[in-house]
Amino acid sequence: MKVAVVMGSISDMPVMQQAIDILNEFGVATHVDIVSAHRTPEKLVDFSTNAHKNGINVIIAGAGGAAHLPGMVASMSPLPVIGVPVKSSNSIDGWDSVLSILQMPGGVPVATVALNGAKNAGLLAVQILASQNAELLQKMIDYKLGLKETVLKAAEGLK
Amino acid sequence: MKVAVVMGSISDMPVMQQAIDILNEFGVATHVDIVSAHRTPEKLVDFSTNAHKNGINVIIAGAGGAAHLPGMVASMSPLPVIGVPVKSSNSIDGWDSVLSILQMPGGVPVATVALNGAKNAGLLAVQILASQNAELLQKMIDYKLGLKETVLKAAEGLK
Amino acid sequence: MKVAVVMGSISDMPVMQQAIDILNEFGVATHVDIVSAHRTPEKLVDFSTNAHKNGINVIIAGAGGAAHLPGMVASMSPLPVIGVPVKSSNSIDGWDSVLSILQMPGGVPVATVALNGAKNAGLLAVQILASQNAELLQKMIDYKLGLKETVLKAAEGLK
Amino acid sequence: MKVAVVMGSISDMPVMQQAIDILNEFGVATHVDIVSAHRTPEKLVDFSTNAHKNGINVIIAGAGGAAHLPGMVASMSPLPVIGVPVKSSNSIDGWDSVLSILQMPGGVPVATVALNGAKNAGLLAVQILASQNAELLQKMIDYKLGLKETVLKAAEGLK
Amino acid sequence: MKVAVVMGSISDMPVMQQAIDILNEFGVATHVDIVSAHRTPEKLVDFSTNAHKNGINVIIAGAGGAAHLPGMVASMSPLPVIGVPVKSSNSIDGWDSVLSILQMPGGVPVATVALNGAKNAGLLAVQILASQNAELLQKMIDYKLGLKETVLKAAEGLK
Amino acid sequence: MKVAVVMGSISDMPVMQQAIDILNEFGVATHVDIVSAHRTPEKLVDFSTNAHKNGINVIIAGAGGAAHLPGMVASMSPLPVIGVPVKSSNSIDGWDSVLSILQMPGGVPVATVALNGAKNAGLLAVQILASQNAELLQKMIDYKLGLKETVLKAAEGLK
Amino acid sequence: MKVAVVMGSISDMPVMQQAIDILNEFGVATHVDIVSAHRTPEKLVDFSTNAHKNGINVIIAGAGGAAHLPGMVASMSPLPVIGVPVKSSNSIDGWDSVLSILQMPGGVPVATVALNGAKNAGLLAVQILASQNAELLQKMIDYKLGLKETVLKAAEGLK
Amino acid sequence: MKVAVVMGSISDMPVMQQAIDILNEFGVATHVDIVSAHRTPEKLVDFSTNAHKNGINVIIAGAGGAAHLPGMVASMSPLPVIGVPVKSSNSIDGWDSVLSILQMPGGVPVATVALNGAKNAGLLAVQILASQNAELLQKMIDYKLGLKETVLKAAEGLK
Repeated sequence: MKVAVVMGSISDMPVMQQAIDILNEFGVATHVDIVSAHRTPEKLVDFSTNAHKNGINVIIAGAGGAAHLPGMVASMSPLPVIGVPVKSSNSIDGWDSVLSILQMPGGVPVATVALNGAKNAGLLAVQILASQNAELLQKMIDYKLGLKETVLKAAEGLK
Repeated sequence: MKVAVVMGSISDMPVMQQAIDILNEFGVATHVDIVSAHRTPEKLVDFSTNAHKNGINVIIAGAGGAAHLPGMVASMSPLPVIGVPVKSSNSIDGWDSVLSILQMPGGVPVATVALNGAKNAGLLAVQILASQNAELLQKMIDYKLGLKETVLKAAEGLK
Repeated sequence: MKVAVVMGSISDMPVMQQAIDILNEFGVATHVDIVSAHRTPEKLVDFSTNAHKNGINVIIAGAGGAAHLPGMVASMSPLPVIGVPVKSSNSIDGWDSVLSILQMPGGVPVATVALNGAKNAGLLAVQILASQNAELLQKMIDYKLGLKETVLKAAEGLK
Repeated sequence: MKVAVVMGSISDMPVMQQAIDILNEFGVATHVDIVSAHRTPEKLVDFSTNAHKNGINVIIAGAGGAAHLPGMVASMSPLPVIGVPVKSSNSIDGWDSVLSILQMPGGVPVATVALNGAKNAGLLAVQILASQNAELLQKMIDYKLGLKETVLKAAEGLK
Repeated sequence: MKVAVVMGSISDMPVMQQAIDILNEFGVATHVDIVSAHRTPEKLVDFSTNAHKNGINVIIAGAGGAAHLPGMVASMSPLPVIGVPVKSSNSIDGWDSVLSILQMPGGVPVATVALNGAKNAGLLAVQILASQNAELLQKMIDYKLGLKETVLKAAEGLK
Repeated sequence: MKVAVVMGSISDMPVMQQAIDILNEFGVATHVDIVSAHRTPEKLVDFSTNAHKNGINVIIAGAGGAAHLPGMVASMSPLPVIGVPVKSSNSIDGWDSVLSILQMPGGVPVATVALNGAKNAGLLAVQILASQNAELLQKMIDYKLGLKETVLKAAEGLK
Repeated sequence: MKVAVVMGSISDMPVMQQAIDILNEFGVATHVDIVSAHRTPEKLVDFSTNAHKNGINVIIAGAGGAAHLPGMVASMSPLPVIGVPVKSSNSIDGWDSVLSILQMPGGVPVATVALNGAKNAGLLAVQILASQNAELLQKMIDYKLGLKETVLKAAEGLK
Repeated sequence: MKVAVVMGSISDMPVMQQAIDILNEFGVATHVDIVSAHRTPEKLVDFSTNAHKNGINVIIAGAGGAAHLPGMVASMSPLPVIGVPVKSSNSIDGWDSVLSILQMPGGVPVATVALNGAKNAGLLAVQILASQNAELLQKMIDYKLGLKETVLKAAEGLK
């Protein structure tokens, strides 16, 4: 089982690293690359059409502004594609990347997470793999218990 | 393999039926129910905490307005949850349901699709199942070929 | 008479403290806790279903992003619930928390105040208690006179 | 116990009637009037400064566009004021009334409900009264049970 | 001829000073005061109903957030009222003050200028006075020539 | 005393007629014309630079979409210019015309009224003239009394 | 000289026909086709990489929702690409298509026109060709004179 | 071949310089000037009506706020006009300049690029010239190859 994490520009790495960290934490293998829909369209085609043949099960794609990478990957791959809207420097408050990724036409879904929500993209990829893998599912149940513990401790600290 | 399709209100059915239709088309079993986060909170807890024990692999949840159903299901289930923002009658142009579903905090992802995008939610659920199922993956590849054929025929018709 | 002040994360405390300060200023007892709709759903259910049995009259709930806490508390409690949209770090300018709290469906109201308006949430809780309590009502009348005095003095200072 | 329901224009009545209906349903006395902040400012002052002396416990105020009525009533009354943003004909999709009512400055809260959410305003007024009235609290608990029953029946109908 | 410059809070002064500066530059007498619609409603009524009897010809009113001051002054005065939306600290990017001032109902106009546009409010007040005063009109013509000269010089500097 | 009412297109007439009606009602002479900033730029220059020489005291300009007419007239005339944002057919919900008219740079004010607020534009023009004309000021006071009467009668009708 | 007019779906034709009509009116040859970025990605690559070799000088591309067609064509063609945001049925008021087309990253421009502005896309294509073609430039000058005549006649009709 | 780069204010220069740099990089002659639609309307008319007679082939116009410069130049010139929305200091997050430039009425197109997208404006101007110039077209093809190389190297650096 392997998850690809691709992004439109090296400047998206600080956000996208959070997805990679989560996948590492769950022991899921990753394939990390920069694939720009607008600057390397041939690489986009090559990556998207072959991912499912290269042992990849889920694709996470992050991009900012008029973010076409997640949708274009989804147009050429039968795999589930998770889109991460990145709030880039000249973005209009992030609305452009959110809407460019979310509002895909019927037939070509992109599983969109929150603005800069790469951590959740990693978790969603794990959940997708876990949906048919009992061991990973248990890890996800444990992870959620960990979230609860952290909040309960913070609440304890209030008193 | 089974996909649950839940919605906050019977009035969401015309939109959500499109997800059910896609799942039927791909031969995926469904569990359809109305679960209102705000009106039946006990049922929400019961459904969400037990779905993975009841043979469900993926959950699709649709809701309008301040749409809390997808996020609350995701908070209690280790399964991947797909959220469908529904443009309900008193919605502020759909922005409320989109943002209520999309902008989940770190740790609790919801795979959000386009406003009223239940068809894509169905396809995304199939892709999730297909990511570890060669037969379903082939069906998805064929489905995408069908999309292409339709467009090419329409283009042909122009001449 | 007691007012509960709950929030989704310890990071909401700097905003929510303003509600606590107001309640202290009016001599109203408070119950302060962290209750995360997404990370501690059992605690959410426990708190919400029992608040009115534990001597609480009004609930103030603050949260950011896809803010489900106020609405979910309201779904399980017969008490008036005041929602405070908090502008968290990855929020889309606060619109997500405002709309997630404000746009509740018919049947389950949340009394929403301004973005980061925890001070007003505290005052609204006092007004709710004061609506059937002559002593507290007089304190509120005096408080408003104090606001007026401050403005009149600032105006005086202009001359 | 009495709840005042005021609105800026007779054209707001179709929306505001839903608040009156709920109050009638719960057996709460109402005082219904048209008070225009912009066209009858003297009446606004008179109503607002005297409501708490006239046996009113809670005020519901609805208005559209640059909706100043709820906030201006709140500025002159120590009572809790519930604001209903009404989507009037020349409104910019309702954003103007929502923001004019919600974004009150520190010191002068307005309990804002959803766009056209007069039904919820009525329910919130009942909850405010119920917060110190055991009989009304029980009615509210029963009302919420009724909401649940309706949803469960609709879910039953699906099968 | 006199122009009143009022604002909802002393914190609006840095913005509103630009209106005062322009009026001073054109030799127009000013009356500057803090009048809070929400904190000093009696002063609001007193100021608004009497301005035209006190030798004032034009009123400039600035406020932030749910900005009711300009509209409420306009509701009680027959004079032209110029509204300045101020981008205050907890504003939602200024949209709340812009819409609260701009979207006045039929019958009660407010002449709205740009967000933080107090300088233009001052100029507009001068133009209103100038529309029936040849001397002031000439000054305004000269002022516009000055604007042109500044731009032409900057253009010259490019070469 | 004369008020010019210009608009960018004959399709703006149904909205702009409301300004003309108000001016007629107050007995103020009007000059009505179509002046398109984008289609008749020479006429724009001619009209704007000469209006104050042709006995015009106030200019009302209405336009939709990227509405440049009010601002361009203001750039060439020393007179007060009132801008009416018109919600035209391909407008993005009116936001384009509102922002194109409102957000003028320092030095060139446009007195903006609500979306489609031509009636208020007419009233504002009357107020501008009335600010130095006792007879017209009295008419405006009477007009506002009429507004009050209408509301009070509607309120009476409720009982 | 030839202009390609491509669109993502046959449902965009009613809007895009206006571009074709303008090009016909100016006697410019057209190549019209349906090219879906999401459903026919191979055709997208083929069309985009070869357009400049096939005698095409300018490309007009229209699409709705998460509109990736114009930007993807621009990523693979050295020709000027004009993007037409189409307000499709499930669009969020057109904002999605506008931002998906407009907010392209540095290096890959798309010349964006107004929402549904296909007529202007046609005119812009003509202007691009005319910028180095005296005959076409004269036709464009004449066209603009025609616009002026139409407005002047409408203005005449007012009197 | 020459491209004019004009801007509404010297404060737009840091953004607009990126267009000039690109044109220099491609060896295209430029004419740079400050032309304020609102402060130097005569210069606006003079520049716009004569540009095509002065050897200019393409016009780039940048402005912020209620940005009328690009549209007004387009109204008076038969040449293609590229508009750059500049995010100026008192802009409402850039929405005002984007909408003021983009939403031009039928008949008068402006080729709009992204907020602060002056670099892309420069590239678009080159593409317009290149659409009928084989040498420049080859340079543009090479430029795009350069973009690809940069991304591929960054991707290489990841490994």
